[in-house]
Formats: sequence, structure tokens, C-alpha cells
Amino acid sequence: MNKLIVRLKRDSYSILIGNGNLAILGPLLVKTGLGNHAFIITIPFIKRKYGPRLEKSFNQQSLGFTWCCVPDTESSKSLKIASSVIKKLAAVALKRQVCIIAFGGGVVGDLAGFIASVYRRGVPYIQVPTTFLAQIDSSIGGKTALDLEEAKNLIGSFYQPKLVVTDISLLQTLPLAQVKNGLSEAIKYGLIRDKGLFSYIENNYRLLLNKNKEALRRVIYRCAAIKSEIVGSDEKETKGLRTILNFGHTIGHAVEAASRYSRISHGQAVALGMSAAIAISRELGYIDDSLPGRITSLFKKIGLPQKASGVSLDAIIAAYRHDKKFAGLENKFVLLKGIGKPIIVRNVNPSVVRQAIRSILKP
Amino acid sequence: MNKLIVRLKRDSYSILIGNGNLAILGPLLVKTGLGNHAFIITIPFIKRKYGPRLEKSFNQQSLGFTWCCVPDTESSKSLKIASSVIKKLAAVALKRQVCIIAFGGGVVGDLAGFIASVYRRGVPYIQVPTTFLAQIDSSIGGKTALDLEEAKNLIGSFYQPKLVVTDISLLQTLPLAQVKNGLSEAIKYGLIRDKGLFSYIENNYRLLLNKNKEALRRVIYRCAAIKSEIVGSDEKETKGLRTILNFGHTIGHAVEAASRYSRISHGQAVALGMSAAIAISRELGYIDDSLPGRITSLFKKIGLPQKASGVSLDAIIAAYRHDKKFAGLENKFVLLKGIGKPIIVRNVNPSVVRQAIRSILKP
Repeated sequence: MNKLIVRLKRDSYSILIGNGNLAILGPLLVKTGLGNHAFIITIPFIKRKYGPRLEKSFNQQSLGFTWCCVPDTESSKSLKIASSVIKKLAAVALKRQVCIIAFGGGVVGDLAGFIASVYRRGVPYIQVPTTFLAQIDSSIGGKTALDLEEAKNLIGSFYQPKLVVTDISLLQTLPLAQVKNGLSEAIKYGLIRDKGLFSYIENNYRLLLNKNKEALRRVIYRCAAIKSEIVGSDEKETKGLRTILNFGHTIGHAVEAASRYSRISHGQAVALGMSAAIAISRELGYIDDSLPGRITSLFKKIGLPQKASGVSLDAIIAAYRHDKKFAGLENKFVLLKGIGKPIIVRNVNPSVVRQAIRSILKP
Repeated sequence: MNKLIVRLKRDSYSILIGNGNLAILGPLLVKTGLGNHAFIITIPFIKRKYGPRLEKSFNQQSLGFTWCCVPDTESSKSLKIASSVIKKLAAVALKRQVCIIAFGGGVVGDLAGFIASVYRRGVPYIQVPTTFLAQIDSSIGGKTALDLEEAKNLIGSFYQPKLVVTDISLLQTLPLAQVKNGLSEAIKYGLIRDKGLFSYIENNYRLLLNKNKEALRRVIYRCAAIKSEIVGSDEKETKGLRTILNFGHTIGHAVEAASRYSRISHGQAVALGMSAAIAISRELGYIDDSLPGRITSLFKKIGLPQKASGVSLDAIIAAYRHDKKFAGLENKFVLLKGIGKPIIVRNVNPSVVRQAIRSILKP
């Protein structure tokens, strides 16, 4: 098992990456004293498929638990669903010392983390990510979020988990499309911070698509290590460093929003957003022609889109103006000067942005 | 004008106490650069009565503003109202750098602070308290909260304002009942931290009930200074010190809850809760008979209740088990060993608690 530590001024926490880690959750809860009752927020599929393993781990330690299933859609990140989960939590938490378990992908992690942050002004929670994307990225760093109709992630908090427990074996049932989603984010980590990781994905994409455990472990570990380091240096995105994690996400989020979060997945949108950010980087002269070609080639091999269909330029621009990173009327982009060399650029000429977005749209 | 500073590890902020402070809000917003548009959360009465003064201050600085009125009841502290305010905020904040103004009493402060803490993971807000209770206490310290049906303040965050601007002149229109509410909390500050303050209230209660500005200013300043000091030492109530602010509140909140937040006000409930906490202190031998008599006498003079009617012992006990301070199955009370000498006691014998609650109920 690999262990990483997210070092924060207070409340540092560990990330445990291994095969079969669900079994250690009960003993961990006892050892850490985080609670005597697990309130497990998850989706029906995960409960059905992996619930028995978790229950066994809790039962062996005589720990109580309560399941709380939410629908397996982005729409679970709403104030409405959050309210209903909090009501259920309040009923359970009255006589128990509850630890919330976020047992799912990014949606469950964002929802459960937000609830943990606001219930009684903060109760402990553990991230148990079940998708490649969540294991690589969203389970780490304490950004919690709910969506409004107006835009995604408009409500949220910075609230760190007490522990991240990553069980790689859960990925064996993951649909291929979600492996690709995770690879899109992994490529981002390579591009902003780690040439070696980018090359590894280039050389081993077939193993990764085949869900080879050792290849997955290497990529998860490396991405988690990069994210831990960045979050440790800039927990609340006040120093600029954490901003580089948004590479590909400014336009990516807008593409997702313009598709109404239905046809284009997060990973696909981030791939498109990265292509657009690279187009801007090239247009502004930060990089030459070789890097875009290399990235496009990798996207093709993996099966990540180079062009979006069914979304309009105007819808994407309207959505990107809603983006959190959009402070006042100024825009701000994470661009590249090369692999592992991100740069934050403000006030990019709107016509350059438009042109870049046009470059990722099917004509 | 008096100025106090709440000294925190990061984001220290000032409390400005004076007559006619509404007029300086516009210049302050410009000077601090907190935003170019004020999103003012308030209740209809305050908007009608004091809105023009605030608008004048903003207009003189060419600052934009948006009014957002919520009902003048505790029920505004709900996820439902919060959602509707956030939607309005999102529409306004798209093209503007918004600073939220909490312009009202405790309900408005709690709601606005919570919204500021979760909108885009935190936007700046300024507390402009309009009640004696809010000026003394709730506008300072960054505890934000919403209620659930199950219990008050079950949802919330620690999120500090950027500034507290207290205008004593607003209290001239405050109903007498609300002056009494504030005095109840002020007596608490005297009891937990400041013999001189307690004596001042004993000697000047008539001036205070008559809303004498200088007397009000002295009490507000002293309470705000005590709270600033305590919050500065224990921002998130992790070190025990902040807990003493809950003196009278454990049973007080339960009495409020048992009355369904309708017949018994917060100040009245806190007075009753303090009487109960003092009864426990005496029963456990921490104090002798003289202090309870002195406090009861002051409550009588001010017109704060010594006994509650229309609430049952069982309802109060059921509600107090819901209290936030109730970790697991253990109870925890702030008691007194004398004026200015609080002590935190765990696992008070439940029969002693019952007896103390019985002592504040009309037979």
C-alpha cells in the first residue's frame, strides 16, 4: 500500500492507495477515533456492488453504519438533495458520533464533503473514491461543491477530509468511458507538472485502458502526489499555485455547462478545454506547433474527443463568463509554455479566446 | 468612533462602533476594495427605515447596490430561503465584484454570513448589525448558521466578516423587548468575563432601557471587546475558551426550541438558561446563595423572565439533547464559580440538570 500525506497548516491527512483497501476502513475508523457510526453517502450501483465489503469491515469492528443513497447524476449536487441528506444525517447523528463516508465518484465526494463542512459547522469525513477520476483528483484537496442552475460548483467550501482511502480494485468494474475520463485528468497532471507522467501515459495507454492494476496504481499515485503537494502549498487557492490545477477547466467547465451536463462528460470536456488552452498558448506564442500535435495524437489513441458537437460558441462563452475563476470582468487562463511549465495569463484578448473555442467545435 | 480589532491568524478585521456609521459604509467599501457592488440582505422594516441612508452613502461613491429582503422571522434561516437568496446573488454577481452586506439582526447576520461563506467558496461580507443583540454579540466572531426543523443552527460555518460596522443610532427605533434581549446577552458577558460590566448594568439598567446612547455604547463596546478577545484566541471553538460564550445557551436554546421559537425570544431564553446554569452551579457547590439572588434581582428589574410557561420539562430535555455542544452521549455545561469565573463541566448528573430545568418552569 502507498501512503501520501497532504501537509496542511492544520489537519494534515493521509491518502492510502492500495488493492482491497475497503477492508481496512472499519479498523481505520476505530484506530483514528473519527466516529462510532459511519454515515455512508453513495449511489445505488456502488452500494449494491461494494456495499457488502464495506459492511463486513464495519461489522467486524462492531461499528454501526447508515446508508444514504443519492441518484447517480450530477443533479445530486443540488441544495435540494443536500437538504434531504442533511435531514437524514440529523436523525442518525443525534445519539451517535458520526463520521461521513463519501463512497463514490466526484459527485458523491463533492456532495458529501459539502454536507460534512456545514453540518454542525463541520463533522469529520473520509473520502473513499470509487472512480478513476475521483481517485486521481477530486477526492483530494478539500474542494466541496454544489451546483446551481446558473452554473456548476457555484456553492461550496474548502473542507479537508480526515483521510482518503483509495481502493484500486474498485476500478475493475468501471466502464471504459470513465477510465478515459480519468486519463484526461491524468494527462492534465502530466502537462502542468510532470513530463515523466505524460510520457508514461503516452507509452502505456493500452495497459491503462485495459485497467492494468499496476499501471493504474502508478498513475493514481503520481497524480495524487502532485495534487497533495500543490494543495499543501496553497490550500485555499490564494497564492496562485493551486490555480494551475484549473488547466483545461475554464473552457472545459463551460463546454460541460453548454452541453447541459448531459452529452459531454467531465473528462471529455477537460480534454476539449485543454485543447483550447493549448490553442491559446500557441496563438500567444508560448509554445510551437509540436506540442499540440503530440497531445492531439494521445487524445486520439485514448479515444478522447478533439472536437465537440451540438454545442454553440455563444453558449460556451456565456457559460465561461459564469466561471468562478472569472473575477469581475477580467478573464484568467492557465496556459502552457511547455510540458510541466504552466503560466497564468490574465486578460487574454476575447477574440483569441473565441478562436480557440471555435477550434474545438465541429463545424 | 471606537475601533476594536478581532485578531485572527489570518483575516483579522475591525469593528467600528459609533453614531451615524451607516454614512461611512460607502467610503469604506471604496477604501477597502471589497467590491464595487453591495448585495444588501435585510428585512423589509430595516430597508424602509434605514435604506435611504445606506443608499445615499453608496450613491455618493457611485457604488451599485441590490436589495434582497427576507422575511423578518427565524424561518428565514432555512435552506429554502438561502437557496432563493443565492439565486438572486448569482444573477447580480455575474458581472460585478460583489460584497455582501448583512444589514439586520441575528437572523440576517447568520443567513448572510452563511451565504457569503458558501457562494463561490467564499465572498467578502460586512456585518452591519441593527439590533442591540447583534451589535453586542452575533455580528462578531464569524459563526454563521441555518436551522433545520430538527434543531436550530444545525447547518453553518465559521466564516469571518471583513468588517463589522455598528451604528448605535439605529437602536433608537428598536422595540423595548429587543433592548431587553440584548441586555440578557450583555449580562452573560459580565458573568463570564467582567465584574465591572455586570456592576455597570446593575447600576445603569434604567439608562439602558431608556436607550441612552452613551450607556448603550459603553455596553456594546465592552461586550464586543470581550467577544473579540475570545474569538481571537479560539476562532473555531477548538481550544475550550470560546465554549464559555455558550453560558446560558445550552438550556437556553432548548427552551427556545421547546417553545417552537415563537413565544420565548432568544434573550428571554438565554436569561432562563443562565438561571438554570446558575442553579446547577449552586447545586454542585461552585457558588453560594448570594449570586443567584443578585442575578434574579437584576432580571426582575430589567423585565427578563425568571420562569418559563407553556413549555414542558420533557420538551426542553428532548431539545437539549439535540444541542450542538452535546457530543455523543456526554453533556457539557458552562457553569460559574463566581462573576467572571466560568468553568466547563462535563457529565453533569442528569437528575441535577432536570432539577435545574424544573426550577425555571412555572408550576
